[in-house]
Amino acid sequence: MLRTHHCGELRAAHIGQKVNLCGWVSKVRDKGFVLWIDLRDRYGITQLVLNEEISNEASLKIARSLGREFVLSVKGEVIERESKNDKIPSGAVEIRVEDIEILNPSKLPPFTIENDTDGGEDLRMQYRYLDIRREPVKEKLILRHKVAQLVRNYLSNENFIEVETPVLIKSTPEGARDFIVPSRLNENQWYALPQSPQTFKQLLMVGGMDKYFQIVKCFRDEDLRADRQPEFTQIDCEMSFVEREDILTIFEGMTKHILKEARGLDMPKFDRMTYADAMNLYGSDKPDTRFGMSFNYITEVAQGKGFGIFDSAESVIAINVKDGNSYTRKEIDKLTDFVKSQQVGAKGLIYCRCNEDGSFKSSVDKFYDQDALDQWASICGAEANDIIFVLSGDKATTQSQMSELRLHIGEQRGLRNPDEYKALWVLDFPLLEYDEDSQRYHAMHHPFTAPLEQDLDKMESSPGEVRANAYDMVINGVEVGGGSIRIFDKDLQSKMFSLLGFSKEDAQAQFGFLMQAFEYGAPPHGGIALGFDRLCSLIGGTSSIRDYIAFPKNNSGRDVMIDAPSPLNAEQLKDLNIK
Amino acid sequence: MLRTHHCGELRAAHIGQKVNLCGWVSKVRDKGFVLWIDLRDRYGITQLVLNEEISNEASLKIARSLGREFVLSVKGEVIERESKNDKIPSGAVEIRVEDIEILNPSKLPPFTIENDTDGGEDLRMQYRYLDIRREPVKEKLILRHKVAQLVRNYLSNENFIEVETPVLIKSTPEGARDFIVPSRLNENQWYALPQSPQTFKQLLMVGGMDKYFQIVKCFRDEDLRADRQPEFTQIDCEMSFVEREDILTIFEGMTKHILKEARGLDMPKFDRMTYADAMNLYGSDKPDTRFGMSFNYITEVAQGKGFGIFDSAESVIAINVKDGNSYTRKEIDKLTDFVKSQQVGAKGLIYCRCNEDGSFKSSVDKFYDQDALDQWASICGAEANDIIFVLSGDKATTQSQMSELRLHIGEQRGLRNPDEYKALWVLDFPLLEYDEDSQRYHAMHHPFTAPLEQDLDKMESSPGEVRANAYDMVINGVEVGGGSIRIFDKDLQSKMFSLLGFSKEDAQAQFGFLMQAFEYGAPPHGGIALGFDRLCSLIGGTSSIRDYIAFPKNNSGRDVMIDAPSPLNAEQLKDLNIK
Repeated sequence: MLRTHHCGELRAAHIGQKVNLCGWVSKVRDKGFVLWIDLRDRYGITQLVLNEEISNEASLKIARSLGREFVLSVKGEVIERESKNDKIPSGAVEIRVEDIEILNPSKLPPFTIENDTDGGEDLRMQYRYLDIRREPVKEKLILRHKVAQLVRNYLSNENFIEVETPVLIKSTPEGARDFIVPSRLNENQWYALPQSPQTFKQLLMVGGMDKYFQIVKCFRDEDLRADRQPEFTQIDCEMSFVEREDILTIFEGMTKHILKEARGLDMPKFDRMTYADAMNLYGSDKPDTRFGMSFNYITEVAQGKGFGIFDSAESVIAINVKDGNSYTRKEIDKLTDFVKSQQVGAKGLIYCRCNEDGSFKSSVDKFYDQDALDQWASICGAEANDIIFVLSGDKATTQSQMSELRLHIGEQRGLRNPDEYKALWVLDFPLLEYDEDSQRYHAMHHPFTAPLEQDLDKMESSPGEVRANAYDMVINGVEVGGGSIRIFDKDLQSKMFSLLGFSKEDAQAQFGFLMQAFEYGAPPHGGIALGFDRLCSLIGGTSSIRDYIAFPKNNSGRDVMIDAPSPLNAEQLKDLNIK
Repeated sequence: MLRTHHCGELRAAHIGQKVNLCGWVSKVRDKGFVLWIDLRDRYGITQLVLNEEISNEASLKIARSLGREFVLSVKGEVIERESKNDKIPSGAVEIRVEDIEILNPSKLPPFTIENDTDGGEDLRMQYRYLDIRREPVKEKLILRHKVAQLVRNYLSNENFIEVETPVLIKSTPEGARDFIVPSRLNENQWYALPQSPQTFKQLLMVGGMDKYFQIVKCFRDEDLRADRQPEFTQIDCEMSFVEREDILTIFEGMTKHILKEARGLDMPKFDRMTYADAMNLYGSDKPDTRFGMSFNYITEVAQGKGFGIFDSAESVIAINVKDGNSYTRKEIDKLTDFVKSQQVGAKGLIYCRCNEDGSFKSSVDKFYDQDALDQWASICGAEANDIIFVLSGDKATTQSQMSELRLHIGEQRGLRNPDEYKALWVLDFPLLEYDEDSQRYHAMHHPFTAPLEQDLDKMESSPGEVRANAYDMVINGVEVGGGSIRIFDKDLQSKMFSLLGFSKEDAQAQFGFLMQAFEYGAPPHGGIALGFDRLCSLIGGTSSIRDYIAFPKNNSGRDVMIDAPSPLNAEQLKDLNIK
């Protein structure tokens, strides 16, 4: 071992000990007669001190030649620091250096290795190995490790078995686009990388594994948006002989446990909300419930007063902002610009101020008298000093626009506190979505999701109304993951494939192995998958998942550090019979 | 929850309780007036009993209709079993069934779901989900989980951080063949799947991560041999500011810990042996040291006696088999056939019996008198009743052939006890191997391995003699893994690339990011990678790694269960611009 201690562990109790430390030069202060060096490693910073009395000439010469990020090995004695630094745990002591050795010099880094760096994102990604030396990045990777350990130990204690499922699997055109891998040993045949281990975990249930989990890499060849990575990590789970309640209980427990252990925070019991309620109350299947401002439908009272825009609308939706009457005209104009932006796409924003004196002042006073506005206020539960905002149009679009406005106002008014965690289960999703382009139903979750038992009789007559026994975990407006009770009956699974437009042959070719497995005693089962990158970012209290990935790819799917993907040489392609 | 207990947990203490169980029908015994069912799940087997007195008619009717592997839900009372079964933990009780429900029927499985099945390997792989229901397969997967948990908790306690490295990386022609993945967003460019996270873990060390580990999937597109999988799992580790001894200590400790916790076995301290000694004493860089029979070089005393075969040989190598004089003529003929087989390739086998009375009887008595044979015996430490076997030829070939013979005899004589664990570190491997085909040196481990400091001066003059600061962990003749102290100096790394025949441009194109990283303060570092599949099989006491993989591929790299790889549709290939 090149060191006796690391840079984060020396305390007053070590005073008088001879130690060896290794690390990186974080800072040098040369006062001429005395010279201090901050030596840094993963664990912390320890101050080194050299001066002409205590240090030999060679060491002083080396110390004066040091640049930032040089790698050092030093020997010396732990002494009490004259002016202690309360901000770091090792701030009570320093090392009186007797000997110093440069293990490796460093060129000047392209950005400063400090908490607040001067490096832009592109530069930091190109030199990600330097970025990782920075405290905030390093701490995020350590948090990720900690969360993974907590998940594994929690689930292992609950009798789950982690089983590794294969990475080289079979392509299935259903769902997102697969990454594919040519097989050299099987000409003109291809593997695909898994979008999730869905079918394998179901086969493990058929195999009697009872409780399965895996923290596993998954792959989707999608056009990348901000914060979408072509490879991402999932906490993947499946259980046999369970009902929905069992799965919700286990994974609510796990999530609370992680937040408690990783952050010391207690989470309240998760709320439950149907998909229908979530859409009606918040216009979103992943509502942020840290704050109110739920939707009020004032369609009936708002129509028939001569205001054409409301009269022709399918829905008129209002939210009440507590104490919002303090908004200035200018601020309301800005909100109007927001809802009219391309991102939201509304045509305009109606407001109604609730004055201190009980009177109302709206942007549509021409059509609505005080009594009419009082009706709005009463439906919205608005009181003096509040403000009501109204949007209208077709129901689904207006819900979605109002959801954006609600989140925007919540953000503005500091109602989305990153240290508060409010979770809910969204339940009873629709089983199917009709897609106009392909003129057929698509599975809202995936083709293995079971319908709610009470909706089974609608499978033929009105498939669009069938609800799924599916659930999403939503925390602070972020969909952390979701799952469902699965179909375990081969006939129901066939019916599902046929609803999704699979011919018998296609279903057989793609999922024949699963259908066959269901003939040999498949148990009732269900599961869940949580986005691990996202869960970590949520627990860490930041919004970017990229920060929690050691070597992320950019929006074009490139790793700019190693410069991948890259062209291949002709021989490699020839071996694979590819042009 | 569809059950109150699982099938492995009911004991005498539960007698009188009403319970619900779910599981698979393992066996039905119908005695007419009474009927027993063995109900099985992952946790065990519980006996159900139905008879005309206690069970309703419907239940009896269902019970009589059951086939093997039907999935049941049953309700009943735990009662004391009349004839207890000591062989299973739940053998003191049975369930007096009140109600029985078939959750799912099953077709007759293609092989019996029992410890000793009648299913051949191909059939079991095709129906792997049924194979997994079998106790021995299930237990192996559970052991794998347990070992993974032990590794992770051990290394986490030692301050290692598990960091996920990317799966979509860059192809490097050095080493084995890569699996490649076309990039749709970057035309004519390709990702590669990692053969190991080698460069990433070194970059993490440059990034100050200090102690890294990962249990990680790796990929090699090799022509498959028995027990080679295109995707395999590795325990991958790297540490900074360490010397060889630090790494050996940690991973020897980890291995002992796992064996103790997973199997209750204590392992003796690992031996240490140089590569040179391993080759000289055992003719193998992964010697099985559970037994002796090390090599004796009798070249000098065996030559010059007129026996042409020995006279023309570079080396004459003898092993002594304790009490081996009991071999019959026929048995010796069989051993001769063995060494002459294609697998071994020797021309013949010379023996020398050490008789009870102190005389010798050899197959080359024509050339060697009693005194000459006494010299052999004395070099080999042979005593009365032993037998000496001799092979000759060029040194390397003879060592390798004798190694095969030694292992074969060890196996025959029961010296390779699967419940005994004997480990050693093989040290000081050659840094480079000269490859006649490509007329250049190849890295024996990989291009990042550091040379031993004392051999540095031979790097230019006689690179073939330079030893590496590399080490392999060998247990019972199996190479569990290996590693090295790495080069962390950019100039030495450049020199290494040039020895390996890389042009400056090639080295830059392939490893430029690593060379660049080394300019910004790379710490001294080293690491190790252990084959996780192999380690599990070793701990489990069986030789096939395939048994420890949930969904393995066959020797053509096929998953015969899901039938992958498979042809793609034209559209997928068009999207990727591939023919």
